[in-house]
Amino acid sequence: MFLARIRVSLKPTVNDPQGKTIAQALGRLGFDTIDSLRAGKYFEVRIDEYDRAAAEKKVQAMCTQLLANPVIERFDFDLDPVS
Amino acid sequence: MFLARIRVSLKPTVNDPQGKTIAQALGRLGFDTIDSLRAGKYFEVRIDEYDRAAAEKKVQAMCTQLLANPVIERFDFDLDPVS
Repeated sequence: MFLARIRVSLKPTVNDPQGKTIAQALGRLGFDTIDSLRAGKYFEVRIDEYDRAAAEKKVQAMCTQLLANPVIERFDFDLDPVS
Repeated sequence: MFLARIRVSLKPTVNDPQGKTIAQALGRLGFDTIDSLRAGKYFEVRIDEYDRAAAEKKVQAMCTQLLANPVIERFDFDLDPVS
């Protein structure tokens, strides 16, 4: 069994109004040293595979087919064996 | 300058209908080895601090005050120096 921790975020060239709004809200709370903030999605997926290469291929496919929009988003993930 | 990569996810005891729906959608796409999927949020924050301890304290405060709801969510983050 593997645990994939997947991070999906907008590509650097894509405008991120959600991130901008959150950064402004933090500014109003007194956090005045924020240079930039980008908002994204995070998924923890437990996969019932026993071969790392197979699990990695599955996660890669999940990301491009559903979890991320490859046109405007990028993704990366860590894969760790779990019991 | 530090880059904080913040992951916010629902506590394990909290029901995650979004994660369940995504897992079902992946199942319909043919991914039949998914054991569980939890959905969360991901933030990349660049902080204009030059002291690691100060940056860490700021990120911790941001998470508890705005980015995460400590009642139902947990968070963790990595902090790396960037130029």
